[in-house]
Amino acid sequence: MAKATVHVTLKTGVLDPQGKAIQHALETLGFSGIESVRQGKFIELDLAEADKAKAQTAVEGMCEKLLANTVIETYRVEVSD
Amino acid sequence: MAKATVHVTLKTGVLDPQGKAIQHALETLGFSGIESVRQGKFIELDLAEADKAKAQTAVEGMCEKLLANTVIETYRVEVSD
Repeated sequence: MAKATVHVTLKTGVLDPQGKAIQHALETLGFSGIESVRQGKFIELDLAEADKAKAQTAVEGMCEKLLANTVIETYRVEVSD
Repeated sequence: MAKATVHVTLKTGVLDPQGKAIQHALETLGFSGIESVRQGKFIELDLAEADKAKAQTAVEGMCEKLLANTVIETYRVEVSD
Protein backbone atom coordinates (compact mmCIF):
# COMPACT_ATOMS: atom_id res chain seq x y z
CA MET A 1 0.00 0.00 0.00
CA ALA A 2 1.35 3.41 -0.98
CA LYS A 3 0.61 6.76 0.57
CA ALA A 4 0.74 9.78 -1.75
CA THR A 5 0.94 13.41 -0.75
CA VAL A 6 -0.03 16.08 -3.27
CA HIS A 7 0.65 19.80 -2.91
CA VAL A 8 -1.28 22.03 -5.30
CA THR A 9 -0.15 25.66 -5.40
CA LEU A 10 -0.89 28.62 -7.59
CA LYS A 11 1.81 29.35 -10.16
CA THR A 12 4.16 32.23 -9.40
CA GLY A 13 2.63 35.43 -10.69
CA VAL A 14 -0.96 34.26 -10.34
CA LEU A 15 -2.82 36.49 -7.89
CA ASP A 16 -3.77 34.70 -4.67
CA PRO A 17 -6.74 36.54 -3.10
CA GLN A 18 -7.12 33.90 -0.38
CA GLY A 19 -3.51 34.41 0.67
CA LYS A 20 -3.98 38.19 0.66
CA ALA A 21 -7.08 37.80 2.85
CA ILE A 22 -5.13 35.66 5.35
CA GLN A 23 -2.29 38.21 5.39
CA HIS A 24 -4.73 41.05 6.04
CA ALA A 25 -6.52 39.10 8.78
CA LEU A 26 -3.20 38.27 10.50
CA GLU A 27 -2.18 41.95 10.40
CA THR A 28 -5.56 42.93 11.88
CA LEU A 29 -4.89 40.44 14.70
CA GLY A 30 -1.60 42.24 15.45
CA PHE A 31 0.94 40.01 13.71
CA SER A 32 3.57 42.08 11.91
CA GLY A 33 6.50 41.43 9.57
CA ILE A 34 4.48 39.26 7.19
CA GLU A 35 5.78 39.84 3.68
CA SER A 36 3.57 37.47 1.75
CA VAL A 37 1.13 34.61 2.22
CA ARG A 38 0.20 32.02 -0.39
CA GLN A 39 -2.39 29.34 0.20
CA GLY A 40 -2.53 25.99 -1.52
CA LYS A 41 -4.20 22.62 -1.21
CA PHE A 42 -2.75 19.54 0.39
CA ILE A 43 -4.22 16.14 -0.44
CA GLU A 44 -3.28 12.78 1.13
CA LEU A 45 -4.26 9.61 -0.71
CA ASP A 46 -4.03 6.01 0.49
CA LEU A 47 -3.65 3.74 -2.52
CA ALA A 48 -3.96 -0.03 -2.86
CA GLU A 49 -1.06 0.05 -5.38
CA ALA A 50 2.15 -1.31 -3.79
CA ASP A 51 4.58 -0.27 -6.54
CA LYS A 52 5.76 3.28 -5.78
CA ALA A 53 6.57 4.17 -9.40
CA LYS A 54 3.13 3.04 -10.60
CA ALA A 55 1.48 4.94 -7.74
CA GLN A 56 3.44 8.09 -8.70
CA THR A 57 2.26 7.83 -12.32
CA ALA A 58 -1.36 7.21 -11.26
CA VAL A 59 -1.39 10.20 -8.89
CA GLU A 60 0.17 12.47 -11.54
CA GLY A 61 -2.70 11.44 -13.82
CA MET A 62 -5.19 12.35 -11.07
CA CYS A 63 -3.54 15.77 -10.73
CA GLU A 64 -3.73 16.44 -14.47
CA LYS A 65 -7.36 15.33 -14.71
CA LEU A 66 -8.90 16.57 -11.47
CA LEU A 67 -6.80 17.74 -8.56
CA ALA A 68 -5.00 20.69 -10.15
CA ASN A 69 -6.06 23.30 -12.66
CA THR A 70 -2.81 23.21 -14.64
CA VAL A 71 -3.56 26.55 -16.32
CA ILE A 72 -2.96 28.42 -13.07
CA GLU A 73 -1.71 25.77 -10.62
CA THR A 74 1.30 23.52 -10.26
CA TYR A 75 1.41 20.28 -8.32
CA ARG A 76 4.01 18.21 -6.52
CA VAL A 77 3.52 14.51 -5.80
CA GLU A 78 5.41 12.55 -3.14
CA VAL A 79 4.86 8.83 -2.70
CA SER A 80 5.89 6.85 0.37
CA ASP A 81 5.12 3.36 1.71
CA MET B 1 14.06 36.44 6.31
CA ALA B 2 12.35 33.19 7.21
CA LYS B 3 9.96 31.12 5.15
CA ALA B 4 7.31 29.17 7.04
CA THR B 5 5.20 26.32 5.73
CA VAL B 6 2.01 25.39 7.55
CA HIS B 7 -0.01 22.22 6.96
CA VAL B 8 -3.50 22.25 8.44
CA THR B 9 -5.28 18.90 8.43
CA LEU B 10 -8.44 17.56 9.98
CA LYS B 11 -7.87 15.47 13.10
CA THR B 12 -8.08 11.70 12.70
CA GLY B 13 -11.67 10.62 13.16
CA VAL B 14 -13.16 13.89 11.94
CA LEU B 15 -15.26 13.29 8.83
CA ASP B 16 -13.74 14.86 5.69
CA PRO B 17 -16.57 15.42 3.16
CA GLN B 18 -14.23 17.25 0.76
CA GLY B 19 -11.87 14.27 0.71
CA LYS B 20 -14.81 11.90 0.14
CA ALA B 21 -16.00 14.08 -2.77
CA ILE B 22 -12.53 13.96 -4.36
CA GLN B 23 -12.37 10.18 -3.91
CA HIS B 24 -15.79 9.77 -5.53
CA ALA B 25 -14.86 12.08 -8.43
CA LEU B 26 -11.61 10.18 -9.04
CA GLU B 27 -13.50 6.87 -9.09
CA THR B 28 -16.00 8.34 -11.56
CA LEU B 29 -13.06 9.31 -13.77
CA GLY B 30 -11.91 5.68 -13.77
CA PHE B 31 -9.16 5.69 -11.14
CA SER B 32 -9.35 2.61 -8.94
CA GLY B 33 -7.62 1.31 -5.81
CA ILE B 34 -8.10 4.53 -3.85
CA GLU B 35 -8.61 3.61 -0.21
CA SER B 36 -8.98 7.06 1.29
CA VAL B 37 -8.49 10.73 0.49
CA ARG B 38 -8.03 13.53 3.02
CA GLN B 39 -7.75 17.17 2.05
CA GLY B 40 -6.03 19.85 4.04
CA LYS B 41 -4.72 23.37 3.67
CA PHE B 42 -1.18 24.38 2.89
CA ILE B 43 -0.02 27.91 3.68
CA GLU B 44 3.35 29.47 2.83
CA LEU B 45 4.39 32.61 4.68
CA ASP B 46 7.36 34.88 4.02
CA LEU B 47 8.35 36.59 7.25
CA ALA B 48 10.67 39.51 7.92
CA GLU B 49 11.86 37.74 11.12
CA ALA B 50 15.36 36.28 10.65
CA ASP B 51 15.47 34.20 13.85
CA LYS B 52 14.03 30.77 13.04
CA ALA B 53 12.95 29.99 16.61
CA LYS B 54 11.09 33.31 16.91
CA ALA B 55 9.48 32.78 13.51
CA GLN B 56 8.33 29.30 14.60
CA THR B 57 6.73 30.72 17.76
CA ALA B 58 5.05 33.53 15.81
CA VAL B 59 3.61 31.17 13.21
CA GLU B 60 2.34 28.77 15.90
CA GLY B 61 0.52 31.77 17.39
CA MET B 62 -1.00 32.53 13.97
CA CYS B 63 -2.19 28.91 13.71
CA GLU B 64 -3.81 28.99 17.14
CA LYS B 65 -5.54 32.31 16.48
CA LEU B 66 -6.51 32.13 12.83
CA LEU B 67 -5.11 29.50 10.50
CA ALA B 68 -6.40 26.34 12.19
CA ASN B 69 -9.61 25.50 13.99
CA THR B 70 -7.94 23.56 16.79
CA VAL B 71 -11.22 21.88 17.80
CA ILE B 72 -11.20 19.75 14.66
CA GLU B 73 -7.86 20.49 12.98
CA THR B 74 -4.20 19.98 13.73
CA TYR B 75 -1.35 21.98 12.28
CA ARG B 76 2.33 21.43 11.52
CA VAL B 77 4.76 24.33 11.13
CA GLU B 78 8.12 24.10 9.36
CA VAL B 79 10.45 27.10 9.21
CA SER B 80 13.36 27.40 6.78
CA ASP B 81 15.63 30.25 5.70
